[in-house]
Amino acid sequence: MAQPTNPSFDIAHLGHVELFTDRMDESLDFFTRVYGLTLSGRQEGSAYLRAWDDYEFHTLKLTAHKTTGVGHIGYRAASPEALARRVAVIEASGYKVHGWTEGDWGHGPAFLFEDPFGHVFEIYYETRRPDLSDGEKPALKNMASRFHARGACPRRIDHLNLLASDVAEFKTFMETCLGARVTEYIQLDNGRLGGCWFTVNNKTYDIACTEEHGGGAGRLHHVTYATDQREDILRAADIFLENGVHIETGPHKHAIQGTFFLYVYEPAGNRVELANAGARLILAPDWQPVCWTETERKKGQAWGLKTIASFHTHGTPPVS
Amino acid sequence: MAQPTNPSFDIAHLGHVELFTDRMDESLDFFTRVYGLTLSGRQEGSAYLRAWDDYEFHTLKLTAHKTTGVGHIGYRAASPEALARRVAVIEASGYKVHGWTEGDWGHGPAFLFEDPFGHVFEIYYETRRPDLSDGEKPALKNMASRFHARGACPRRIDHLNLLASDVAEFKTFMETCLGARVTEYIQLDNGRLGGCWFTVNNKTYDIACTEEHGGGAGRLHHVTYATDQREDILRAADIFLENGVHIETGPHKHAIQGTFFLYVYEPAGNRVELANAGARLILAPDWQPVCWTETERKKGQAWGLKTIASFHTHGTPPVS
Amino acid sequence: MAQPTNPSFDIAHLGHVELFTDRMDESLDFFTRVYGLTLSGRQEGSAYLRAWDDYEFHTLKLTAHKTTGVGHIGYRAASPEALARRVAVIEASGYKVHGWTEGDWGHGPAFLFEDPFGHVFEIYYETRRPDLSDGEKPALKNMASRFHARGACPRRIDHLNLLASDVAEFKTFMETCLGARVTEYIQLDNGRLGGCWFTVNNKTYDIACTEEHGGGAGRLHHVTYATDQREDILRAADIFLENGVHIETGPHKHAIQGTFFLYVYEPAGNRVELANAGARLILAPDWQPVCWTETERKKGQAWGLKTIASFHTHGTPPVS
Amino acid sequence: MAQPTNPSFDIAHLGHVELFTDRMDESLDFFTRVYGLTLSGRQEGSAYLRAWDDYEFHTLKLTAHKTTGVGHIGYRAASPEALARRVAVIEASGYKVHGWTEGDWGHGPAFLFEDPFGHVFEIYYETRRPDLSDGEKPALKNMASRFHARGACPRRIDHLNLLASDVAEFKTFMETCLGARVTEYIQLDNGRLGGCWFTVNNKTYDIACTEEHGGGAGRLHHVTYATDQREDILRAADIFLENGVHIETGPHKHAIQGTFFLYVYEPAGNRVELANAGARLILAPDWQPVCWTETERKKGQAWGLKTIASFHTHGTPPVS
Repeated sequence: MAQPTNPSFDIAHLGHVELFTDRMDESLDFFTRVYGLTLSGRQEGSAYLRAWDDYEFHTLKLTAHKTTGVGHIGYRAASPEALARRVAVIEASGYKVHGWTEGDWGHGPAFLFEDPFGHVFEIYYETRRPDLSDGEKPALKNMASRFHARGACPRRIDHLNLLASDVAEFKTFMETCLGARVTEYIQLDNGRLGGCWFTVNNKTYDIACTEEHGGGAGRLHHVTYATDQREDILRAADIFLENGVHIETGPHKHAIQGTFFLYVYEPAGNRVELANAGARLILAPDWQPVCWTETERKKGQAWGLKTIASFHTHGTPPVS
Repeated sequence: MAQPTNPSFDIAHLGHVELFTDRMDESLDFFTRVYGLTLSGRQEGSAYLRAWDDYEFHTLKLTAHKTTGVGHIGYRAASPEALARRVAVIEASGYKVHGWTEGDWGHGPAFLFEDPFGHVFEIYYETRRPDLSDGEKPALKNMASRFHARGACPRRIDHLNLLASDVAEFKTFMETCLGARVTEYIQLDNGRLGGCWFTVNNKTYDIACTEEHGGGAGRLHHVTYATDQREDILRAADIFLENGVHIETGPHKHAIQGTFFLYVYEPAGNRVELANAGARLILAPDWQPVCWTETERKKGQAWGLKTIASFHTHGTPPVS
Repeated sequence: MAQPTNPSFDIAHLGHVELFTDRMDESLDFFTRVYGLTLSGRQEGSAYLRAWDDYEFHTLKLTAHKTTGVGHIGYRAASPEALARRVAVIEASGYKVHGWTEGDWGHGPAFLFEDPFGHVFEIYYETRRPDLSDGEKPALKNMASRFHARGACPRRIDHLNLLASDVAEFKTFMETCLGARVTEYIQLDNGRLGGCWFTVNNKTYDIACTEEHGGGAGRLHHVTYATDQREDILRAADIFLENGVHIETGPHKHAIQGTFFLYVYEPAGNRVELANAGARLILAPDWQPVCWTETERKKGQAWGLKTIASFHTHGTPPVS
Repeated sequence: MAQPTNPSFDIAHLGHVELFTDRMDESLDFFTRVYGLTLSGRQEGSAYLRAWDDYEFHTLKLTAHKTTGVGHIGYRAASPEALARRVAVIEASGYKVHGWTEGDWGHGPAFLFEDPFGHVFEIYYETRRPDLSDGEKPALKNMASRFHARGACPRRIDHLNLLASDVAEFKTFMETCLGARVTEYIQLDNGRLGGCWFTVNNKTYDIACTEEHGGGAGRLHHVTYATDQREDILRAADIFLENGVHIETGPHKHAIQGTFFLYVYEPAGNRVELANAGARLILAPDWQPVCWTETERKKGQAWGLKTIASFHTHGTPPVS
């Protein structure tokens, strides 16, 4: 698989995900009390949430909606100049463009555009840091806010996974618009890409795309936050169990990316993950994407767990 | 503290450290059997070592020498063009330059230069990946080599710490020559910098510099490898204990950077660390360096452990 | 050190500790919100607390008092017959006896007696299990109550440590009255016992006694709850840090008993520990007590941490 | 479920399991190098193995045999008197008795008897402790031998699981002959016991029996060693993966007993487990056995993992 020879470095990192819910109260209770995010504020039908060491005002925008799924995905640019460069590239790309907005509550002006499957992306540079109440100030000043130890209490947003009917097309979109690099991918026997994992920095991935098998469009597979240790995920499994949260699969270790994982459904049905990559980073500037064949994928996860059927079909919003 | 407004992105990551030892056999036994690195090969008085998921031929070059300390520090550039850009900058900088070498066993042509305190640095782009024997091939193809579970078995090189009589001067050197960014620093009451932590990528730091209090020049404070989990470090403490390795301090959590740490002396006296940063990364392109005052530092480490006296004085080589 | 040849098996386990506090509100807030115990109920100036998997109504009785320290220590007998046997032995022993009480809120009739240093003990058989509210019922029916994940959230009471001016005398008391066995002890150069660890079952210890160096009488060194994993203790250290709790020493591993530990002071000054023994149990019926000499103890804890000065002097109540 | 009202305390703990293998060399390599037991010695076709903190000469006797499965199960009595008491009870019980042997290499005189399904048991009191070579001596004198950190390196033997066509009958056998107590059991809708977990001390179980569905007799389900932490089991999963060991299921948490588990097949096909119970112990002398109905068991393991089909059918020796 060919990689762009010159990483752009224009995009700094995944900023936030807007998640739709048709059970706002229950979803918000889940994300704050059980999953362990912090509410930065509420405005116009949305709750702005962040993990305890997320440095931005929000990394999850939870929006009351008629259905579930992903509202939009925000990436932060590395500088104002980098943002301008990216906008120029996107405008020239032919992909559908929504144009500039004045920005959301949690950040400055943003440029919106769309992948071929209906997922809306935005890029921005100016951002907002949370206003910490006294009770939110950390004991150690290098932390974004206090380690509150509430619920599963992940440290920061990690990645999301989108469904697309043509993963190769999504790959071109990511490389073109965000300058993203592929770190791992699934090559199906029929010549199609089964899935693709992308990064814009040293993280092993900040977005993944897997093939849509449910007939939907613009759907979300899952959103993920990172924990400091694998033990945090084992502990979270007990928290989910005690709170009646549906555990779909895990804890286990992915063969792809080697991530330790746990998948649950939040009350409205969106799949949410907790993950831990250990000390794994993609530091090599000439990283060669790792190809997984269909045969290799049939071996299941790293330690042999067979991938659960719903993992291939459940996405949000549900297909009616 | 002012930060360069445009991160260069020219340097990809810390590549390797050359460590001098005057007890080659014992040091090599320690690093392979107890600390858990893998020997890629030996050549002309040096052993080339790597952690199991280091992707390069070597990240530690252990060299038999009349004394201890650091031989040189290698950083890998992001591309051939980036390497050329950096060389031009360094040549124009006025810092002492050794010029090009054809490269070491583990990488291609390298450009050597020196900080004002006598530490030798090199930058290179062309690199070599280890030739895996059958027994070294990983079960998961996205790993650099097999998780061998021997000794403490850290995952990858993480950082090193150098001693300098003037940390501010070292800071200028790092910003100028490597385009490094400061993530945290210690501001002493006397106006001097007590220590400074630098990164060239999303890691929280890949090099640190603390003030030399022992009167030496060009000395090393420690070299560090990263473990996947904190539990790996607790387990390593037992391994060190059972193998008669001198544990200097830890396991505990640093206030600065929040890293979970354990410091030991390898048989020749060089300080070696195991560390785990959890899921902490520096993703913000406009990260504001965190300033620790002398008063704050006197509180000790994160959970109250007082910094042990030898930590402020022991460096290698010893001062005669 | 001679051991009784026939373990009595009459005493099943440490049941509870009554702790005095002269800052009731703050102590109760600490134990429930930060340390993570559950309030079973309040009655007459006392709060009855338990860990989530403690099966009895209370394992900590927190009592408002004019000072701090230990009120009494309760052990549960193995059967009504075993209780009767023990009472007969204690009555014949010559130790100070308080006689029968109708029992506390959390258990049935209890027989009270005293060690030569003023610590009050009681033994009982009839006990009370907590009445679980709907929110306290566990997801898994083999757990005593719900894993609530609040604060440090230890699993069960583990042990306590008392101070005595003559540890050998305390040893005779424990062997005589409770049929306890010594698992480890410190033999000082002056011929005295520096400390002694006792068990009545397969736990490595449920009570310890160390030499009083502060001139007090009937004092407490610490009370300890057990966590499931060492990671729980590392996580608790952050919780204590964020809540302004004084961390005295740890996390680290004891040389004696090999327990992973963390010591803090609750708001009134009583020392409280979290500990994890891993899978270590005393299963051998002919276990030979492990003797630690003064020289060996000077090596510090398992991984070299020097024992902090306050650990040898701080007890509750304070000596005026 | 009625429990014997007077625990006998005559039996101290599970001592060892003899495992048959028809691939002696491969099985021995697995148990020493991968699973991480230590070879105490070899004699007459058997290898005597122990975990690093097992205090007896052997806890696993691995015997070259024409097939696989369990040779015999040894329990250590609490005293010579207790041994005599038990022998009298067993002789009067009507169960098949093999009588006294002079003992095996690892212990003194033993009394052998048999359950109704052909599993051979022995009880003994006199035992042998391993002769530690210099390299096996522990750094901490309260450990049985050195923490060698080789392979999965569990701490001690934990339990075994036998298959029987009538679990209720096995229960009567255990209560009668060993004075064992039931801690948890499965009550099938057809009125039969689906499984039963027994203890003779404070461990949650040291033997379990589940219903034989494969038509065999005297078969073994699995043998288990305990690790100190759950993380040890996650790490072991990677070791098994890298060594080509068949991982049957896990890591996950059992609903029954709450044990964190991982099941693999050693090279000859015997199922071997690593398990961690956290700080869970059965301390209550009047513990009420926990009943799991068939409906409850259909929910799968604690975090929702469905029990794998082979878990219900695979036992050793295989049924021809």
